[in-house]
Amino acid sequence: MAPSPSWVKALTPSGPQGHELLAKERAQSNIPVQQLSEFLFTKEVLEMKQRILGILQQEKIFDKSQNYFAGRIDRFETALGRAKALRQLCVKHGWSEDEHRMANDLISEPGPYGLHESMFLITLRDQGTPEQHELFYKKAANYEYIGCYAQTELGHGSNVRGLETTATWNPEDKTFIIHSPHLTASKWWIGSLGRTANWAVVMAQLIINGKPYGPHPFVVQVRDMKTHEPLENIHVGDIGPKFGYNTMDNGFLLFNKVKIPHKNMLARFSSVDPNTNKYLRPASPSLIYGTLTWVRSTIVMQSGGVLARGVTIATRYCAVRRQFQDRDNEGGNGENQVINYTMVQIRLLTLLAATFALHFTGRGMQALYSENQKKMALNAGKTSSEKRGAGPEETRAGSDILADLHATSCGLKSLSSSTAAEGLEVCRRACGGHGYSSFSGIGPWYSDYLPTTTWEGDNYMLTQQVARYLLKSARSVLKGETPTNDTTRILKNFLDKSDMGAAFDVLGKDQDLVDAFAWRTAFLTFEASKHRDEQKMGWNDLLVDFYRLSRAHSQYLVVKSFHAALYSPDTTSSLDPATLTLMHKLFRLYALHTLESEASEFYTSAAVTVRQIQLARTSAVMKLLKEIRPHAIRLVDAWDFPDWQLDSSLGRADGRVYEDMFQRASERNPLNGITVDPYPANETLFKRDESKSYRPKL
Amino acid sequence: MAPSPSWVKALTPSGPQGHELLAKERAQSNIPVQQLSEFLFTKEVLEMKQRILGILQQEKIFDKSQNYFAGRIDRFETALGRAKALRQLCVKHGWSEDEHRMANDLISEPGPYGLHESMFLITLRDQGTPEQHELFYKKAANYEYIGCYAQTELGHGSNVRGLETTATWNPEDKTFIIHSPHLTASKWWIGSLGRTANWAVVMAQLIINGKPYGPHPFVVQVRDMKTHEPLENIHVGDIGPKFGYNTMDNGFLLFNKVKIPHKNMLARFSSVDPNTNKYLRPASPSLIYGTLTWVRSTIVMQSGGVLARGVTIATRYCAVRRQFQDRDNEGGNGENQVINYTMVQIRLLTLLAATFALHFTGRGMQALYSENQKKMALNAGKTSSEKRGAGPEETRAGSDILADLHATSCGLKSLSSSTAAEGLEVCRRACGGHGYSSFSGIGPWYSDYLPTTTWEGDNYMLTQQVARYLLKSARSVLKGETPTNDTTRILKNFLDKSDMGAAFDVLGKDQDLVDAFAWRTAFLTFEASKHRDEQKMGWNDLLVDFYRLSRAHSQYLVVKSFHAALYSPDTTSSLDPATLTLMHKLFRLYALHTLESEASEFYTSAAVTVRQIQLARTSAVMKLLKEIRPHAIRLVDAWDFPDWQLDSSLGRADGRVYEDMFQRASERNPLNGITVDPYPANETLFKRDESKSYRPKL
Repeated sequence: MAPSPSWVKALTPSGPQGHELLAKERAQSNIPVQQLSEFLFTKEVLEMKQRILGILQQEKIFDKSQNYFAGRIDRFETALGRAKALRQLCVKHGWSEDEHRMANDLISEPGPYGLHESMFLITLRDQGTPEQHELFYKKAANYEYIGCYAQTELGHGSNVRGLETTATWNPEDKTFIIHSPHLTASKWWIGSLGRTANWAVVMAQLIINGKPYGPHPFVVQVRDMKTHEPLENIHVGDIGPKFGYNTMDNGFLLFNKVKIPHKNMLARFSSVDPNTNKYLRPASPSLIYGTLTWVRSTIVMQSGGVLARGVTIATRYCAVRRQFQDRDNEGGNGENQVINYTMVQIRLLTLLAATFALHFTGRGMQALYSENQKKMALNAGKTSSEKRGAGPEETRAGSDILADLHATSCGLKSLSSSTAAEGLEVCRRACGGHGYSSFSGIGPWYSDYLPTTTWEGDNYMLTQQVARYLLKSARSVLKGETPTNDTTRILKNFLDKSDMGAAFDVLGKDQDLVDAFAWRTAFLTFEASKHRDEQKMGWNDLLVDFYRLSRAHSQYLVVKSFHAALYSPDTTSSLDPATLTLMHKLFRLYALHTLESEASEFYTSAAVTVRQIQLARTSAVMKLLKEIRPHAIRLVDAWDFPDWQLDSSLGRADGRVYEDMFQRASERNPLNGITVDPYPANETLFKRDESKSYRPKL
Repeated sequence: MAPSPSWVKALTPSGPQGHELLAKERAQSNIPVQQLSEFLFTKEVLEMKQRILGILQQEKIFDKSQNYFAGRIDRFETALGRAKALRQLCVKHGWSEDEHRMANDLISEPGPYGLHESMFLITLRDQGTPEQHELFYKKAANYEYIGCYAQTELGHGSNVRGLETTATWNPEDKTFIIHSPHLTASKWWIGSLGRTANWAVVMAQLIINGKPYGPHPFVVQVRDMKTHEPLENIHVGDIGPKFGYNTMDNGFLLFNKVKIPHKNMLARFSSVDPNTNKYLRPASPSLIYGTLTWVRSTIVMQSGGVLARGVTIATRYCAVRRQFQDRDNEGGNGENQVINYTMVQIRLLTLLAATFALHFTGRGMQALYSENQKKMALNAGKTSSEKRGAGPEETRAGSDILADLHATSCGLKSLSSSTAAEGLEVCRRACGGHGYSSFSGIGPWYSDYLPTTTWEGDNYMLTQQVARYLLKSARSVLKGETPTNDTTRILKNFLDKSDMGAAFDVLGKDQDLVDAFAWRTAFLTFEASKHRDEQKMGWNDLLVDFYRLSRAHSQYLVVKSFHAALYSPDTTSSLDPATLTLMHKLFRLYALHTLESEASEFYTSAAVTVRQIQLARTSAVMKLLKEIRPHAIRLVDAWDFPDWQLDSSLGRADGRVYEDMFQRASERNPLNGITVDPYPANETLFKRDESKSYRPKL
């Protein structure tokens, strides 16, 4: 690209400069940013981030300057190059899993090793026998085998039991025949498979002697180890471009009666006895149940940070961008910062509150999960006679906590990933026209995040699991059983008090705000229970109610977690009073804004009055926006995203947004390397100056 | 690309085939699709579509098979090639504007001639003098000059008065000096400017003798007519990749004291007298006012069809896709069509209803606009003494209709484009995982449509105009003036009846449903009026209320328009009774679903009771979904999108969705032309088989 002419280089933005505006923003708040960051992430993690960032920035392959310009093939090639380089850095520096994850967070793009490093390795490790660890896991962990996890099919996503790929046991030569009987049996969406993987864990219907035993995992080589061409009778490739995630090679895979040896069925939990040709039953299905819960809790944990990226970018830009004057103050001091408009605040500051709400919720969930894992490990250590010695109440409490955790993870995964995804789009639009530019950094991030609303349980489908659990809990409470966890407790509390009704001081007391959310959940649960158990309504006719119920319950969980986090000794001892007060305001903003957005359910359940909602809307929320506004920039600063990670013109920490936008467009944009002939009649479409035009290179 | 092996070609999807499922869907409804299509679009337009489609499909340049794969540069080059070819077809076949527009609709991508053919030509025509028509318009209309409309700047979008580019009158040599004093003065987002245009209409602050006169249009040459390189002291280029719209070269433009002659200021309405060096005042600013209203009414008109594309794709796919069994009917006849789940219906069928609601609203608005234009033309024909003869009531009524039309266009533009954009994303997600593939055809369409929510008035900003108008109307009614249009009528009606309260039979009577929406608008208007005019609250503190008010009012307008359309003689004579009944159900679904989504405002205004909302939610809406469900496929068929236009695997009219997905991935995907070395240690990143790998070509 030709550099800009000198008269262009001499130009600066008009009016108060972006860096001046952000400096003023930071000066008007007394929130200790570093202290808050350390509270959110710990000092160790923040230091690790800086260390790893320094290493990545020195490697040319991680240079991001062509990311937004490159086409699919170039982006994929670069992403694979980065995955390799990252692996080498991991080895060189002996990085832990946490350090590896941090590096990936900073690079911020899905990479072709993604599924190798997660589901392929995890499945080999957790579902393989010691012999299989030797055969497969060690080679995979050493990157001699590059693999993926092939479950989803062209015709089957959520419904795993409906998978069509078969693995037929062949008693004669003790092999399995992997086969795709239909086009819809083609594996589809398989991350890392399209171009990269040469091995796959394939989920296939096990068939022995003509009888189906459901989906099981098989290790299958799909490409030649040297030429990397597909093996015979295997058709494999990339599924094509997507809304995002284009640095990843999601793939398809079809088998034409491919034979694999007996040892390739991952046999830790279930297997085929090669002598008797009999199926050996799974040892512990609840372990897999636990893995899914863990994956979902990770999604909840990440959602706050995912959203915070968009909020950081939009909040900074809205503090730099000025547009119009305040209508009541025309002729005032030039144009108004966009963030001063309440219509912008109601969108951005409520999302800022949500980032903290989701962060504390994720943290709470992970604590709950760890606690439960410990209990299970303890229990697994007991002899079976000890287990038999446990009273029925104790046993029920244990399984109740597990079921509660499972339902919680489903509901919160759905709510938190939807909140993050939809919130990012709100942030993008809050940036006005420039939000549409890739340089905003929000659009590409949003596009890459979107699949999270579908995978690990579609956000709509999951709500049925929550409803099912709440219905079960309602039945238990209605039978008069003693509550064993928070869910049954709030249901019982509602039953005990529903006659006299509620009188929550949602505007005055934080605890009452939490209780109002609990009340609404309980009300909707018993409504659903009435429909299903008394009126015997069809399950399908209740799906919309179930969705609402799950949403209500999950919102209660978020409000409760945020509230609990603020009152925990860890918080009160870590934060100074000013920050703590501000956090309480963010809590109230999140809770009251959610309450008034879902007002009709709160009315209907009689948790609040019309007057309270009107006050929440016109007075309390607007007042909180005003009080939080001066701290907006420091609050997003506390999320501690390096500019390199955000890769956003609009979200620059120093506020030099227009300079950055201009520089990217004028000096980095390869399209400006072509000169066209614009006239319709001319045959030759283009004059292309190859010396100026270029494709992005590494 | 290597073709698929023969064993792959022999595979078909499992279970009932897509084409069988859609055939069954079509067989179970008696709605005459052709009749409904003709009612929506007229027979002539449908025939024209087929004729033009046939012509386009014969031209190789319009082949869409590489659209989803190509990178930015290739997409832009192809799009310019298409724009040229289309221009040649227009000349060859003598196509009218309608025919040209139809061809663009079928091609369905923003093209590099886009702003030349719209704003550049329109501005030259409408704001140029006859002399300037000779100089500029004729050449532009003949594509000797290729131009654009350069208004928005890096630092200024919505606030046109804040533009920084200057046009300083130079009395010595009778020229204007066009200059960009700051970086933020750079023109930005200018469609067709990045690579294509060699001329621009530049909006710049006119300065005469040091005094600013506001933004005015100037015609400026920016590139050489032969070499197509930028002229001296002009820095121009493409602004880079965007969330969508990447076939268009949105550009930037900076001027370093560029001189243009006096004749280059478009002088029909205002000009500089070269002899006296005096500014000559604009003749009729209301004309521009009218143009914006027209542009917005076009957006309203198009929004129904924009959304209908997504609804068509998602509805067809959800009828082909089967997943799980009905929980109350396990062991039934295989998996259930996804469209049978109520959670899918509540998302898709309500949007299907919205497509018709928006279509009739757009139609109504355009009728209103034409009627008003006629009146204005009539009035313009009157002598000034005749005008003076008009009574004050008559004059007020005339200007009231104009103001009403302006406010209506603002509110409806905001509501309809938000509904379409957000609805498309709902459609995409309703397709599950496959919605994320570009082959769904929804994502790319959504990405290209999104700017509509920002341009021609940001959807949030516009709501202030609506509120301002409603506040003015409220004042008029409170003063006791006689209502002159529907807005003041519904406000007066509310005042007259607010003491006794409302008792709308929203579940029983269609007219009452419309009246309930009117009631809510009036209630919110008087609330806003109280806040602003009595309590003197700040404008900025009321923006959120204004947004809600505008939304409420616009929803009322949509419900009213849909209702009016159903009772018009044109409708009742065009549609058979079965179709008419179904249309009434769609009306009720749209209105009741909107009502229950916005329930809290309806409660607060006492337009409905809690019981009514509960019934609407749990009974009326669910019943309507059931009744409309069997007709879903025929209803989307009536929107009459050719497969070629949709370019969607999932939305194929014949239901062969999996075959199409597979064929695109396996046989058209250029990424499958590269073979990679996946091991981290190897220096050589890729083996690239150039004979297999290719970049998309024309």
